[in-house]
Parts: sequence; structure tokens; C-alpha cells
Amino acid sequence: MRIGIVGGGQLGRMLAEAGAGFDARFTFLDPGDAPCAALHGRHLHAAWDDAEALTALVDSSDALTFEFENVDPAVVARLAEQRPAYPPAQALAIARDRWAEKTLFGELEIPVAPVARIDSQAELDDAIAEIGLPAVLKTRTLGYDGKGQKVLRERADVSGAFAELGEVPLVLEGFVDFDHEVSLIAVRDPVGETRVWSLVRNEHRQGMLHCSIALADHPLQRVAADYAGRVLKRLDYVGVMAFEFFVAGDDLLANEIAPRVHNSGHWTIEGATTSQFENHLRAIAGLPLGATERLTPCAMLNVIGALPEREAVLAVPGTRWHDYGKAPRPGRKLGHITILAPDEAKLDERIEAVEALLVNDLG
Amino acid sequence: MRIGIVGGGQLGRMLAEAGAGFDARFTFLDPGDAPCAALHGRHLHAAWDDAEALTALVDSSDALTFEFENVDPAVVARLAEQRPAYPPAQALAIARDRWAEKTLFGELEIPVAPVARIDSQAELDDAIAEIGLPAVLKTRTLGYDGKGQKVLRERADVSGAFAELGEVPLVLEGFVDFDHEVSLIAVRDPVGETRVWSLVRNEHRQGMLHCSIALADHPLQRVAADYAGRVLKRLDYVGVMAFEFFVAGDDLLANEIAPRVHNSGHWTIEGATTSQFENHLRAIAGLPLGATERLTPCAMLNVIGALPEREAVLAVPGTRWHDYGKAPRPGRKLGHITILAPDEAKLDERIEAVEALLVNDLG
Repeated sequence: MRIGIVGGGQLGRMLAEAGAGFDARFTFLDPGDAPCAALHGRHLHAAWDDAEALTALVDSSDALTFEFENVDPAVVARLAEQRPAYPPAQALAIARDRWAEKTLFGELEIPVAPVARIDSQAELDDAIAEIGLPAVLKTRTLGYDGKGQKVLRERADVSGAFAELGEVPLVLEGFVDFDHEVSLIAVRDPVGETRVWSLVRNEHRQGMLHCSIALADHPLQRVAADYAGRVLKRLDYVGVMAFEFFVAGDDLLANEIAPRVHNSGHWTIEGATTSQFENHLRAIAGLPLGATERLTPCAMLNVIGALPEREAVLAVPGTRWHDYGKAPRPGRKLGHITILAPDEAKLDERIEAVEALLVNDLG
Repeated sequence: MRIGIVGGGQLGRMLAEAGAGFDARFTFLDPGDAPCAALHGRHLHAAWDDAEALTALVDSSDALTFEFENVDPAVVARLAEQRPAYPPAQALAIARDRWAEKTLFGELEIPVAPVARIDSQAELDDAIAEIGLPAVLKTRTLGYDGKGQKVLRERADVSGAFAELGEVPLVLEGFVDFDHEVSLIAVRDPVGETRVWSLVRNEHRQGMLHCSIALADHPLQRVAADYAGRVLKRLDYVGVMAFEFFVAGDDLLANEIAPRVHNSGHWTIEGATTSQFENHLRAIAGLPLGATERLTPCAMLNVIGALPEREAVLAVPGTRWHDYGKAPRPGRKLGHITILAPDEAKLDERIEAVEALLVNDLG
């Protein structure tokens, strides 16, 4: 099994780790000098759209995939003519465009918060009149980890906001008074088989994922799986996709999708029968998908900007350490810590113990 | 964390896989042309006792370890003068010598089957008179996977047996009418902290491990852990050690130890909070040991001599594939399959389903 990955960050690195049991070989295309995934394979050091490097990637791979969504769908389409390349270009095109994403949810009758497409300050003013305040203004493309967005709380925030975000295509989203945010990791294979993992409750800090807790028997698990299934089927998707939802009372509102393995699914490495990384590989290689049951109460804490003291973290029972081998920098995801426990009460204690040790620097 | 390993087989390979989360770097000393562990690190291609290669191994490592027990204890002792090198030479010396092993068990009041040291045919005849038939004659050193041993069932088997096994030092072991064989994987760190995993029930075929099933709440779990603790403490041991026992009614008889990660502990990669491989690394690197709870009913089947059809195996729910990347050859361990299940009944079904797919060639 030879896998080519566009991108050489920690997601590519963990995909390669999941491929070890398959004796898989990995090639990473990444413009960085020393992408952290390169530890586990060959690094093609070139721009994302470098024709020669893309040819080399194709030549050294039986199947191709992407570790981030902001890849040019035209590149994907070109690769897909030569090798199985997943996820499909169409899914990448939709996932990188918030308006296309919301439109898809609407077509599939998946509930979302009020939303409007904004291409001018006038359209923003009109949309505010309809949706009201507070609301969140986001760039249609290229936003991540809370970047490229602005919360509008009062009238004064609205005027000039279109210019402030760069006069690029935007969407305005009505503010949802949600109880919590959850995500669902799902995977689909080329013959349409679909699996989901347990819903995960996410907590963000400064727009970046801080903590994910895998939930047992969430009352909206089936609803979430149903919504995910609709999207995956419509896109004829292959591979792992992450779905972010808001839980508001009995309602589940779709927020966004990520057409790739996802930070909120890292707990599956230890906490599920098969991880998101392994099932992504199985899917793109056309192998049967693995079971996705949660094995035990489990959570994940992100390590951002600075590493905590390793010995102290490992002294907390049930912890597993994931150092991505990246140089520390404020706001940079350097690793994560998985926490396993025999019951939910112990899990909460352990999360608290690890949180007390984190020295995250969100920048 | 830079780890040097003497040996580059599948045990070294899986140690390196367990080190990924620590961003560890591995160097393997192995005389083979393409040892399978080399996928995950640097390969020093030289004889076990090559002075130059050993120096290079030391220079590229913060801690050293061994993936098999038949390493010259003098080499270990020399390495240990320069770097932390575990397990200790003394443990390797004892584990490679069946008589020293049995003597140690006796000193620590750990029950064993009747045993005698045999250095001549006359001693064999005397020992048979005392121990009786059937009995098993084994070379004191260098035996593994059922090699270097002979079962003596009747008088005719006894005459000439000493010559047949090469006139080397032997031990004679009384035949134990045991219910089943179990093993216990244990780990000890430099400050004396000790952990054990669930007892494992093992089934052998032609002297090679075929199947290991992790047992919940075996009545002899505490007794086994107590015996293991005595041995680890006596040897001032650091790292993982495997203990093989016979269960005969309410009795647990020690059979042998292996001073390394062990085939019967491979299930811990998926089936326990922390695997034997990760805890071995934690121990030799002086990091706190990880929790060892069994997460779910779990078993392991060895893949020997020939690979079964991968798709068919992965289509059995709860299976995880481990291909060591070795060229097939009769009797060679090529990989293993871990099987996870939500309950014991489903585990049994799944084991049966996978066994039906195996095409093992034991040679």
C-alpha cells in the first residue's frame, strides 16, 4: 500500500502512524522545509501546485489523499484522473466555501442557524435587519481556527465590517444560543459503507479546539449520524469527514464540515476499536472499514504553543502522549494528550489534572 | 528520546511504532540485510558484537534495549557502562539459561514442575528414574518456538537422547498435566514501580504461539502478579518481562521468562490503555509507566508463513491488521491480527471467523 498525501503536517503524520500495520509507504507533498510527517515517509519539497512534484507524488502512490481542505479542487481533479484520489474534488470545493456548505445542508434538509450570503456592505446591512444581532461574519473561504471571522454584537460593529474582513465574499451566521458544540467523525468507503464514531463534545479557547470528550449514548447520536450519512452519500464521499454541530435543546444544527481526519477525532487512536486515521486509509485503499465503538471513556486535550512537562502529564493515570515533533510557536498545535479512564467520574478527574499541567500559549 | 535497539525484527519495529507519540528516534543494530524494523529508523548493518557498530549505536542513543534474549550478556554489560541499557545483563544471562531460570524460581519460592539439570546421558537416566515419564528434555540455552527440545514418552525415547540434542547442557522437565498455559506481561521502571497486564491464555501449534486471549479476572491473576513481582525485584529489572505459566487446577507453575516484549502481549497495542511496547519505552527512558487495564475483550492470532487474504480478515468486525513487512517463509512470523469485541461471546465468534481465514504455514 503506497499512499500519497498532499500536506505533511500532524494529520499526515498520524495517517502514516496508522498505516504501519499495513506496512504502508507514504509520500508527502509539502512546501515546508521539514514538515513533521516527513519522519514517516518521503518528503516532496515543493509548492502545492508544482507539476513535477505532483507527478512524482502520483508515481509513488497507489492512492492519494489530502490532509487539509484548502487544496485547489482543480489539483484534486487532475490527480483523480491518474489515481484513486479521495476525498473527491467536489467535496473539497464545497467544504472550503461556507456558503456552498450551508446551501448543501439546506438542500439535504439538515437544520442550520440563520445564514446569509454577503458580497457587499449593503447586503450585510440587509442581512442584519433580517437575522438580527449578535451574529458572526465569516469569510466564505480560507478561514480556520477562528481566523477570518468577526463577531458582531451591536450596530457599531456592523458598519465597515465588510471592508474590515477585506471585501471578500462572506457569510453572516445568526448567533446560536447553543448548549454545547459537538462533532461527529464519519467515514465512507467506495462501495458506500458508512461508519460513525461517538459524538464528541468540544470546548474551544480563542477559536481553537481545546478539549474533546467522546460521549456515550448522546441522545442526538442517531440524528447526527443520519445528517452525516446524507452529506456523505450526496457527495459520493470516500474517506473521513468531520461534522461540527451545535446542540440547542433537542435540536442539532449543522455548523460546518471538514473533509479530512479531524482534531476532534484524535481520541479514536486509543479510544475506539479503529481510529479515524486507520479508517481513512482503509477507505481510500478500498479495504473494509473497521469497527468504531468507543472502548472506554476518553478525552483529548490539545497541546498548543508550548509543551507541558511530559513526566508530570504521564504520571496522571490513563494518559497517552502525542508529540508531533514541531518547533514550539504561540498558537501552533504541537501535540495532544489522550486521556482514558474506566468511568466518566475518573475521566473528569484526570482531565482536570492534565489541564492543570498545560502551559498552552494560544498566541 | 533516542533509542538504540539490538535487533531489528518485528519487536523492534513495534517498539518504534509505540515511540511515535514521543517523537522518538530509533537506531537498530541487526546483521540482516533488510530487517523489518528498519522502516522506522536507522539500520546499523553489522554483527551483534561488531565493536564499531556498537559504538555507533551508543553514540546515536540516549537509552538502549534488546529485542531478543540470546544476546551476549557481556555485550550488554559493556553497553550499560556507557548508556542506560535495559534489561540488565544479569536478567538476560538468567533468561537464556533454563537451569538458571528454574533455580531463580526455586530461590523465590515460585512453584515449578519437577526439573533436573542434565549434563550427560547418565544424569538423564538418573533424572528419569526420579521424575518419571513423560518428560521434556530441553537445551539449557538458545531454544525458542519449540526448537531445541524433545518429548520423552517411553524408555526407548530416553536412550541416546542426550546425544540426539547435541551433547550440550540440558534440563529435564517433568510433564505437567496442565489445564492451559497462560502468560503474564509485566513491566518495571528504574524506581521499582511495577505494572502487569491481564493474564493471557495461550494456545501453541507445533511449539509456536498460535493464539493469545486476554483474560478478565482470572482467579490466578494476583498470584501471577506476585510471582512476577518477586522476579522483577530480585533482578532489579527495568523494562517489560514476559512470564509463562502452566495452570494446573488451582496451581500456577512457572515455566519460563522472556526478558523483553513478547508475542503474547501484542494484544495490548489495541486492547490495553498502554501497550507493552509503550511501557517498555517509558521504563527504559525513565518515564512514568502507563495504565495497563484491558479495555475490551481481546485476542491475538499469529500470522505465520503465509498471509491470509487481507480484505477477508478486515471484513470480520473488530479486526486490526499487523503486517511486519517480512518476506513469507514457512515457520516465519509475518504478522498478527488483533481481534477486539464488546463481549466474550462475540470475541469467540470473531476468533473462529479469523481462524478459518488463516493460511499459516508452520514449516
